[in-house]
Parts: sequence; structure tokens; C-alpha cells
Amino acid sequence: MPRIDLNADLGEGFGRWRLPHDQELLELVTSASIACGFHAGDPQVMLETATAAARRRVTVGAHPSYPDLLGFGRRELDASPEEVRAYVIYQVGALAACCVAAGIRIRYVKPHGALYNRAARHAATADAIADAVHSVDPALVLLGLAGSELLAAGRRAGLLVAAEAFVDRNYEPDGTLTPRSRSDAVLTDPSACAERAVRMVLDHVVIARDGTRLDVSPASLCVHGDGPAALALLQAVRGRLGDAGVDLAPFAA
Amino acid sequence: MPRIDLNADLGEGFGRWRLPHDQELLELVTSASIACGFHAGDPQVMLETATAAARRRVTVGAHPSYPDLLGFGRRELDASPEEVRAYVIYQVGALAACCVAAGIRIRYVKPHGALYNRAARHAATADAIADAVHSVDPALVLLGLAGSELLAAGRRAGLLVAAEAFVDRNYEPDGTLTPRSRSDAVLTDPSACAERAVRMVLDHVVIARDGTRLDVSPASLCVHGDGPAALALLQAVRGRLGDAGVDLAPFAA
Amino acid sequence: MPRIDLNADLGEGFGRWRLPHDQELLELVTSASIACGFHAGDPQVMLETATAAARRRVTVGAHPSYPDLLGFGRRELDASPEEVRAYVIYQVGALAACCVAAGIRIRYVKPHGALYNRAARHAATADAIADAVHSVDPALVLLGLAGSELLAAGRRAGLLVAAEAFVDRNYEPDGTLTPRSRSDAVLTDPSACAERAVRMVLDHVVIARDGTRLDVSPASLCVHGDGPAALALLQAVRGRLGDAGVDLAPFAA
Amino acid sequence: MPRIDLNADLGEGFGRWRLPHDQELLELVTSASIACGFHAGDPQVMLETATAAARRRVTVGAHPSYPDLLGFGRRELDASPEEVRAYVIYQVGALAACCVAAGIRIRYVKPHGALYNRAARHAATADAIADAVHSVDPALVLLGLAGSELLAAGRRAGLLVAAEAFVDRNYEPDGTLTPRSRSDAVLTDPSACAERAVRMVLDHVVIARDGTRLDVSPASLCVHGDGPAALALLQAVRGRLGDAGVDLAPFAA
Repeated sequence: MPRIDLNADLGEGFGRWRLPHDQELLELVTSASIACGFHAGDPQVMLETATAAARRRVTVGAHPSYPDLLGFGRRELDASPEEVRAYVIYQVGALAACCVAAGIRIRYVKPHGALYNRAARHAATADAIADAVHSVDPALVLLGLAGSELLAAGRRAGLLVAAEAFVDRNYEPDGTLTPRSRSDAVLTDPSACAERAVRMVLDHVVIARDGTRLDVSPASLCVHGDGPAALALLQAVRGRLGDAGVDLAPFAA
Repeated sequence: MPRIDLNADLGEGFGRWRLPHDQELLELVTSASIACGFHAGDPQVMLETATAAARRRVTVGAHPSYPDLLGFGRRELDASPEEVRAYVIYQVGALAACCVAAGIRIRYVKPHGALYNRAARHAATADAIADAVHSVDPALVLLGLAGSELLAAGRRAGLLVAAEAFVDRNYEPDGTLTPRSRSDAVLTDPSACAERAVRMVLDHVVIARDGTRLDVSPASLCVHGDGPAALALLQAVRGRLGDAGVDLAPFAA
Repeated sequence: MPRIDLNADLGEGFGRWRLPHDQELLELVTSASIACGFHAGDPQVMLETATAAARRRVTVGAHPSYPDLLGFGRRELDASPEEVRAYVIYQVGALAACCVAAGIRIRYVKPHGALYNRAARHAATADAIADAVHSVDPALVLLGLAGSELLAAGRRAGLLVAAEAFVDRNYEPDGTLTPRSRSDAVLTDPSACAERAVRMVLDHVVIARDGTRLDVSPASLCVHGDGPAALALLQAVRGRLGDAGVDLAPFAA
Repeated sequence: MPRIDLNADLGEGFGRWRLPHDQELLELVTSASIACGFHAGDPQVMLETATAAARRRVTVGAHPSYPDLLGFGRRELDASPEEVRAYVIYQVGALAACCVAAGIRIRYVKPHGALYNRAARHAATADAIADAVHSVDPALVLLGLAGSELLAAGRRAGLLVAAEAFVDRNYEPDGTLTPRSRSDAVLTDPSACAERAVRMVLDHVVIARDGTRLDVSPASLCVHGDGPAALALLQAVRGRLGDAGVDLAPFAA
């Protein structure tokens, strides 16, 4: 029976502010990538999110970012590999402690936003991240874009890696994500996204923005937790995957 | 043969800024309390300091603070016990990962500045800190002011605790530190501080600001790393302790 | 004809996060106290809010805070008067420039959260704020709690001052606000708040938590913009004031 | 008699940390570009620096940056023109208020670090800065690299502009600064820098890294205030300019 993981970014509030639906999203995913304080997520939000994930038996990963609360980690920052390495070690450690305090352990690391995008194509940044993760805990899995430099770097570092595909983001013909600066970067139709998810899992295919047929073989499907329609979209994806006989289970456990 | 630990706060730079003598201080102490990013200490500074401590076989502890870079963690902040608990978990985890990446482990936790002072007299804050430390790693030792609520809270939580005395700070007759708002809060004469250190270790006594004789039985002596004369003072203390036949060794190892 | 000002705290988003109803609230108030970046409000949010206020001819004031994004400025911080003075100058200047760029001028200053509360009872902090405001622009009005140290300090500094009363906060018998730590600190029934507003304006009276009758003579009524029911509450207040023949107009213009 | 301005970046401390020589540098320059809190410079440091500049009759400009305390504003950040515009308005306003409180007015704006470099070659960023400055106060002068997009944008916006040359930075053959990533980016020999300064002012020439002769006609010479040898270098420059009969005077007053 085919299986797939569903992951979303969670715990992306800060202080007085929350993004909607964190709690409901936790009911719908099998893995939660939790913000670590650099783009979102303060220590209390992290503890609460880890505790809620533990209660629902959702697998937890760290979601480290460039230090950019103001830009939500979505802006490229020209940080050196040494800086990136230190940022990842710090954030993974901080979330790891929150998880231990919540009675669980983190299982994977997935970079956030602009750092994710840079690590997909820039080998030195990807190596810095992989090395950071390995130096904290070599049992952690590195989750990244299928075909990315990040996954290659993870393999070089001796880590287990897992590829993810995005059900609600458009793809360029080269397999990278359509940049958010384009109006068609984000997909919002629940039904189309659900159909896309089924084809990714069963047919190992996704259709790029220009019609190019891309091969994918994801261990996890990502749905963005911070969009307004995240809940409806995720429910549609879960429903359609279930109808197609796909089992949902964490990729790392 | 009598033994004592010497600890100093280290790694208290941030970004472009450093406090002087970090490297030299590491040659003179047996334990280093490393800032964790909330009052000082960015991820790179933390990694560098942990790495330097590892090289010199100095024992490392986490030095968590209120979130107050602008005030260097020295201003009382009315944070709730739940907030304090989360802050300590986060910071201890972040430094723990930096230490693991540097090939060592943290051995103790000592709160910084205004958090240290509040935890010395406020039981709920002290319990929050002790609970945080225990929930991350029950093998960590809690280092705090002799006779403080913090040490009592640590014992309640089932932690090993260690008392420290300050060779370069004046004491009030009740055993608390003279507040920094007073001009005589900080002692700067190396020779007087060294003499004070010897009496603390051999006679278990320190003389308060008003002449009161206070009993102390410290596991560690603290010298502040950020003062202008820290180096000279620490050299004098080491020299005099050696002359008096006191052995220097980490309190936690 | 009796007149009163309605003020709310606005622009209290940051980066990716917004509090609901900023735009709608602007339709309902005559004065907007805009966050200046220390507890909320980044430069873009400030510019957008100033621009929206200009379009609706709402009078704008600066809403400076302790530097505490994580605690939304609601936690007492033991900052010195010199620090407070500098923080207020900085924030007032930053918002003043945003207003000039939006084609308007700020007219008043009202401290936020814990700084507001401290300035209500602590003369040195109040003097620091009043002096800061006067040193930037002596034509600015200082808005604060009726009977507070802040208004006394404003008068000492030679500023125009204006007293406000809170339609959605409970009062202690001594005229201070019931602390948010108490469950009955915030009032949420629109009808009761509206009735309260009318009595404040026409009868110059508010009933404290324990039934004490307090004299008030506010130049402005404050409704909190960040609560979930702010809109309904403000609409009820406006409606009832209109029915009672009270004219709404800015206190500073 | 030939005249030139000497400018340095000042007030680049933060909280507990200071860079050395701020006070001494103020004795040696005719213009001070004061950090505004985004890469360095907290409100108290800004007030102190403005006050010290006022006492010494040094002309003051704002030195706005990307929001990057951790990277001292030296890392390129992919901020949009709208973001940059808001950041500059905010920072200029904050420093303007500090100056008013110190009894003076800011006279010019010079972007810092990575923002300066980007504005030198990227027209949309340059326009955002020029528009921000003009919208706050059209009498402010925009100070930037000779031949840069920033100066062109300033002229388009209707601002007075002034070109600066760097006595302690190497130049590329195209007139841009040698990037700090190269080991020969910064010049440290006081005598060579002083000679360079004289040739810039009297001969309107500077020799690029590869020997190319570049035409310059600076209104101001910049010496970096944060390098270890800033004082000696600035003294040498002042001495040699004086010997060559060059008068020192602010470019904006």
C-alpha cells in the first residue's frame, strides 16, 4: 500500500501574534516543521507547539531560518556558510530542548524560506546546513526539495535525507519552485492541489508552470500552514489521498 | 587538599562587538558560563567560545538571561514563571547544541544578571528555572548564589546544586549582592579580592559591606569577565589561592 | 454641545503578523495612537497606518513603549529615566517622519502598556517621558490616564496634556486601571461599555470595580484596538454617544 | 583655498558594547554619520553622540541601514524598494528627533554598509532611499559614492547630493569599492592614506587596485570609524591635508 507523509510549517507565531489554525493543522499533518525563533516562533510558542504535537503523535522537525523576524525569513540574506552553520546549530538545539521538555525528540530538520531556497541551489550553504545538523545529531533526517543541493549535501555529510514536493506551490521547468514574486507562485484551489498530490504519490509526476512534466518521488508532501486556506486545502488533500488508497504516515520516526 | 572552582561569564559579545579578554580569561578559569543569545552571545560567538573552552578543557555551563540585548540582561523584567521556563529551556538547548558541535557537553546552568538576582529571592521564578533545567537534562548542575531561593528550587526539582561566592562584588548583611546601582557594588582591587577569595575558601567567611561576617561555603568563586580589570583580578586570585595551597578544579565534571 | 474624542491603539502588527480590524477601526475613531516599533509596528506598518489615518482625517499620536516585542510592551522593565527618555525621543521621531511622509503631522504622544502604567504612578519615569516629548516638539500634547503622574509631569514640562478614560477596562477604587493579571480587568460587553462611555462624558463619572464612584473628565475615551470584540464595542460606543447628543472630534488638532 | 569635509561613521555601539574612539574621532572629523539603531546605535548612544557632536560643532547626518544588528548591516538583504523606503524614513526620523533633543538638526543622509553598496548600483533601491529622504525633509543632502546610482537618484528626487571618496578603502577599476571579502579591501597605512587624501582633493584622482587612474571630485572624504587604527589614520590625513593647504569644513551646513 502506498504511503506518504504530510508536513506543514507550524508554530509560526511570535509573542502577541499567532497565525491562524496551528491547532487544527496539527490534526491533519503527520509531520510538523516548527519555527525556531529566527523568522517566527518564540520559546513559549515552540514549547506549546511541541507539546501539542506530542499529544497528537505528530512527528516534529526543526525549521531553522535566517535571522529575520521582520521579513519572516523570506528574504535572501548574504550570510556566510560559517554563519549559516552556527544559526542552524543554535536553532536545532533550541527546538530539541523544547521537544525534550515536551517528552518527545525532533526527528528531522527542514530549512525555512529564503534559506531553504538558497540551500536548494547553493552547495556551500547546503553543506553548512548538513554539517550543522550532523554535528548536533547524526540521526536527524534532512528534509528538502527533491533534486536539490541540500539533499546532495545531506548525503555527503552522511545524513539520511528525504525529498518533499509542494502541493500548493507552482514549479519551474527546472524543478525549482516558482518564486513568490510571481502572482502564480502559490496554488489555492483545494481540489486541484489534492489531485496534484495524488499524482505526485501514485504517478511520481508534477506538471510545471509551463506544462513540463517533472519526475518526483517525494517522501513527504508540504502544505503551507500560513496561508488563509491552509485548512481546507489540507483536508482536500487528505481526503483525496485516502480515496486513492494512500496511507498517511510520518517519513521519519 | 582544599579545592575550588573559578568561574567567569564568557562569550558576551554580539555580532560586530566583543568584550575584551575572552580568550585570556579562558586560560584562567576552570568553568565558563557562556551567554546564550538573550543578553549577549550570538550563535557564532557561542560556537567559538565553546570550541575554545573545549580546547582548554574548561567546563562549560549555560548562562541564560531575560531577552534584553539592549540592557545586557541587567534590568528586571516582569516575565511570568511560564515565560522564564520557556526562555531557559530555549537557551540551554541552543548552547547545548553548540557544545555538542564543539565536541563537549554543558555541565551546569547559571542564570544571568537580573534573572539571577530575581531567582535568588523569588521562589516561583527559581522553580521555573529549576524545572526548565531538569526538563532538558536532569544531570545538569544548577549554579547559584549561596543561600538563594534558586538553590532551594534546584534541590526541590531533584537537581544537583552548587553555591558560588563573588570575589569582586560587595555583599549586603543578609547575604545578597549589593545592587549595581550603588557605587560600591563592584570591587576592583586585585589584592583585596584575592585575599577575600582565600578567606572564602579556607575560612568559609566573607565580610559584608557593613562589616557583618557571613558564612559561605562555595563550590565556585565567580569573577566577572566583563569588567575592565578582570584579567589582573583573576590572576591575583589564582596566584593567592595557589600560594595558600588551594587546588583549582571544576565543580562539575 | 458636548464633545469627546475616541482613541484606539493602531498599527500593532509586525512583519508577517497583523492584528485584526486596523482598517475598520480607523473608520470609527477620531484619534489613532500608532505603535512605533518597540512593542509592535514595523516601519512599513507605521507608514501604512499613518497613510490610512491621513486619508480618513484621523488625528495621529505616537504610542511609544519599552523595547519588548516579545512581550508586546506589557511587561514592566526596570529601565532608568535616562533610558526611557531616549526610547521616547527615538520612537516619537520615527513616527513623526512616517507621518510627514504621509502628508500629516503627529499631534500627541501616549505611552503604551507597561510604560503607560509606570508613568501613571512613577514621577521620575513620567518626567522622563514629558521631557522627551517636549524636547522633540513642545507643541505635542501628552495623553494619559486622568489623575496620573504622567499628566502632572506634562504640565511641569510645559506641555498641553489631555486625560483619557477607558471604556473597556475596569478601575480600582484609587482611579488606576485594574491590572490585566485579574480576570475582570477587561470589559467586553458592548452595551455596558457604551453606557459607561456616556456617563463618563455627560456625568463625569465612572464606577470602579468595587462600586466606588470616581470623578472623571476625559478629553478622550480609549477603546483597545487589539481585543477580539473591538469593532462591535466601538460601534456600540459611537452609537450610544450619538444618541446622547455627544459630538465626536479629535482632542488635539 | 581648497576645502574638503572629513566624515566618519560614529555612534556604532549598542547597549553594553561600544566601538573604541567615538569621542576622539569627533575631534577629528567635520561630519559625523550616526548609526540609527538598525545595524548599531541604540537610542541612548544616538542621543549621546548627537550631543557630543553638537558640543564640538560637528555636522550630523543619519546613517541608516538594513535591519541587521547581528551582521552590522554589512550583509546584502533582499529587501524590496518599499521596505527600504520605510526603513530609511523610520531611521532618519529617529535620529532627527535625537538631534533636535540635542539642540541641532541633521543635515544629510548616508546609507550604511550593504545598503550603501546596493544603492550605489541598483537604481530602484537608490530611488527608494532618495524618495524617503525627500519625503522626510527635502533640505537634507544625500551623501554617496561618487558616480553612484544613489547620487543620480538623489538628483532625480530633487535633493542636493554630495560625493564622497574613501581614503582607507581600495577601489576597483570601475570606481566601485573593493569588496570586504577581499583581503586588500581596507587600507591601513596612515601615511599612504593621507597621501591618497591629498591627491583626491588637489588632483581629483585616486588610483584603483589595478593601477587604473580614476577621476574623483569629492565633497567629503570618508574614514571608517570602526577600524582599529582609525584615530592614527585620521590624524595623518588631517595633518597632510593641512600641510597641503587644504581647509577642513563641513560639506553640508
